[in-house]
Amino acid sequence: MNPHEYADEHRQQFLDELIELLKIPSVSTLSAHEADVRRAAEWLVAHMQQIGLQARLYEIAGHPVVYGEWLNAGPDAPTVLVYGHYDVQPPDPIEKWQSPPFEPTVRDGKIYARGAADDKGQFFTHLKAVEAILRTEGRLPVNIKFIIEGEEESGSANLERFVQEHQDLLAADVVVISDTHSRSLEQPTIVYALRGMIYMELEVHGPEHDLHSGTYGGIVHNPAQALCEIIARLHDSDGRVTVPGFYDKVRPLSADERDALAEVPYTEADLIRETGAPAAWGEKGYTLRERAGARPTLEVNGLVSGWTGEGAKTVLPARALAKVSCRLVADQDPLEVYELVRDYVAAITPATVTSEVRLLHYGHAAITDRDTPAMAAAIAAFEEGWGAKPIFAREGGSIPVVAYFQRILGTPVILMGFGLPDDGLHAPNEKLTLECFWRGIATAISFYERVTK
Amino acid sequence: MNPHEYADEHRQQFLDELIELLKIPSVSTLSAHEADVRRAAEWLVAHMQQIGLQARLYEIAGHPVVYGEWLNAGPDAPTVLVYGHYDVQPPDPIEKWQSPPFEPTVRDGKIYARGAADDKGQFFTHLKAVEAILRTEGRLPVNIKFIIEGEEESGSANLERFVQEHQDLLAADVVVISDTHSRSLEQPTIVYALRGMIYMELEVHGPEHDLHSGTYGGIVHNPAQALCEIIARLHDSDGRVTVPGFYDKVRPLSADERDALAEVPYTEADLIRETGAPAAWGEKGYTLRERAGARPTLEVNGLVSGWTGEGAKTVLPARALAKVSCRLVADQDPLEVYELVRDYVAAITPATVTSEVRLLHYGHAAITDRDTPAMAAAIAAFEEGWGAKPIFAREGGSIPVVAYFQRILGTPVILMGFGLPDDGLHAPNEKLTLECFWRGIATAISFYERVTK
Repeated sequence: MNPHEYADEHRQQFLDELIELLKIPSVSTLSAHEADVRRAAEWLVAHMQQIGLQARLYEIAGHPVVYGEWLNAGPDAPTVLVYGHYDVQPPDPIEKWQSPPFEPTVRDGKIYARGAADDKGQFFTHLKAVEAILRTEGRLPVNIKFIIEGEEESGSANLERFVQEHQDLLAADVVVISDTHSRSLEQPTIVYALRGMIYMELEVHGPEHDLHSGTYGGIVHNPAQALCEIIARLHDSDGRVTVPGFYDKVRPLSADERDALAEVPYTEADLIRETGAPAAWGEKGYTLRERAGARPTLEVNGLVSGWTGEGAKTVLPARALAKVSCRLVADQDPLEVYELVRDYVAAITPATVTSEVRLLHYGHAAITDRDTPAMAAAIAAFEEGWGAKPIFAREGGSIPVVAYFQRILGTPVILMGFGLPDDGLHAPNEKLTLECFWRGIATAISFYERVTK
Repeated sequence: MNPHEYADEHRQQFLDELIELLKIPSVSTLSAHEADVRRAAEWLVAHMQQIGLQARLYEIAGHPVVYGEWLNAGPDAPTVLVYGHYDVQPPDPIEKWQSPPFEPTVRDGKIYARGAADDKGQFFTHLKAVEAILRTEGRLPVNIKFIIEGEEESGSANLERFVQEHQDLLAADVVVISDTHSRSLEQPTIVYALRGMIYMELEVHGPEHDLHSGTYGGIVHNPAQALCEIIARLHDSDGRVTVPGFYDKVRPLSADERDALAEVPYTEADLIRETGAPAAWGEKGYTLRERAGARPTLEVNGLVSGWTGEGAKTVLPARALAKVSCRLVADQDPLEVYELVRDYVAAITPATVTSEVRLLHYGHAAITDRDTPAMAAAIAAFEEGWGAKPIFAREGGSIPVVAYFQRILGTPVILMGFGLPDDGLHAPNEKLTLECFWRGIATAISFYERVTK
């Protein structure tokens, strides 16, 4: 029996084990679930040991890190580091679930539970792949390390430090993460670029205190108005960010890459259907996919000033605040872009008010070379294990841990997405399609068999 | 003894009575003070009767209206309606008062108490003027009516209806209100124009729900950004409102009126000292006084969208809301101006979002002819009673009751301000300068003696 046959024969067992894991409400952001989070970590350690890994917990400032390894493939075999997270989002609003979030239920070939796709069901495929190979061949073709954290849903606050302090432990030739989604069952997807970000507060000050808008309206520059005037100047009418130098370091899209991104079109109609927005918008000269994945952006995430309650208050506010963030792409430097934004806002702030741009946090963009042996192995693994050639995608969002691995460990990261776009992450009725689970296991097996140093 | 001599001789008695009234914490907006509000009303009825008026309460939906009259001057004598309010603002923040807000205390020739200037100490001058004339001459040269309401600080919600339903009761040749301030002891001030207003909500909608700013940033027009872009287009770089037709009905300032307003200059330095704003701002071609009093404005009173809490949330908000108000001047029609704003916002809203402008409430501007016998009497009364020629001022704010009297009763309103700019209305340590109190009584006596039909 080969590993694929083993996996096929043990589907029910694998599903039962996943259900056991999904039953543990390991909600990392709610202190009431602290014991559950630890229970999930301990369940994983035991499970890793059971399938033949050396495993233990690492206690950190927050929820413990689960670490497991099998390093007997020898120095010539490649070392793969698999990252995942065993914590889950809160299940609210709980009344919108068709079946209880922590009573996993299979309906129409999908398993419904909080964490089914994000990320328990996804990283579990790798453990099952390892089990299938070990049980049938007695050894793995690769050295493998698992780092499964418990704080992803609360921002991986302690993971950067853990990676910093455990560089030897985590040393590998490639990192594999299954925590994204494929575009469809027929279009398995490798995300090769994630955007970085800077998150800022832009605050405009005018008078020392709120003023009566009747007495002073028309003679004092209203900070809420001035904030709007500043923000309105941060984009031109072509949807481009006007901050001088903003695009200078952006790695241009090659014709080849544009072709690859265009293989699966994403139209204005798709966008309208998904979001309900009345129309598409954005930077002229780029497709929607390119705008969202390969181009940097500047967004207003929040506005607050003056009277925001019901009804009327005739205040001329003393200050106005905007939350503003930029999504960044390679090779933009977050701190450099922050300085550009800060300086431009200072330059366009009129003398009638004062302004300040504060940096709250930042992260680097991540991009993986699509032309490496590891990537070739991933492509072949999808073809064999999933049954379709994967497409390459750039993701608009940011996964900080990817940049940690790339920047701290210097290890390329391959994002093999085993979820689907409608999995309902962070929403009620989260699910994982079982066909994805089986195909994910087969793809992982094929990847371990093919990846080289 | 003439009335002025009587007033001089009875200063201590007048002050003691005012202190009695100020001790009653008639805070109209706090239900805990409901009994106190009624106590103040009843105190006033009794006091009016004591000095020789017919007086009673009118029960209305909210706090009662105090009404008093003396109508024995005959049909050829003019009838004066005096308006005031016996309710006061809450005293918070109470810890910032040097002496307790409802234990009136005289320091340095000023009486400190909540309501000292707004408005108990001001309307009380008129009662003391009436008393001084009645006690010395046995009769008044005018028919007089007092309407002292108890809901001014909560927006005079029920007064419009009361005026509507009691037009005969309130019929008069002139309304006198002492609820504003004079520029200084040396510059008694007659406010002859108040601005009207429209208060609106401007809401921009984009996607149906909040979106992830990583996934959709750059391809969906961010409603917070779009709101800023719309608001930024409501003024030009000269500080003029760009809404087409906005200024069409504005009554131009005559050269004479501009000269009168310029008599007491108000400089940028004054504005900076008063507000802490870094510079003056506003419509080119007009002085600060003209901008704040004689020109219409458009203000952003509030902004709210997306994430407004601490720290970062990478949301692309589904909607953004601004509270926007216009101060209006004669002869702008509030509903017409609302329609102009609404239509212009619709016209400049891009197809990538939708917008809506809702009218919350409105009020007409009020302006009184400066060239009438009643105004001449007021000027002469200040010269005699206060000891200085009054200046004319336009107020930027809006006092709805003034427009009620003008529009419902058709009666001109004269605003004789006996307060000073630093009285601390609505703030801790509210005070009335005693010299203002004495001079106010003398001015009121002189006014009643001089006003003609």
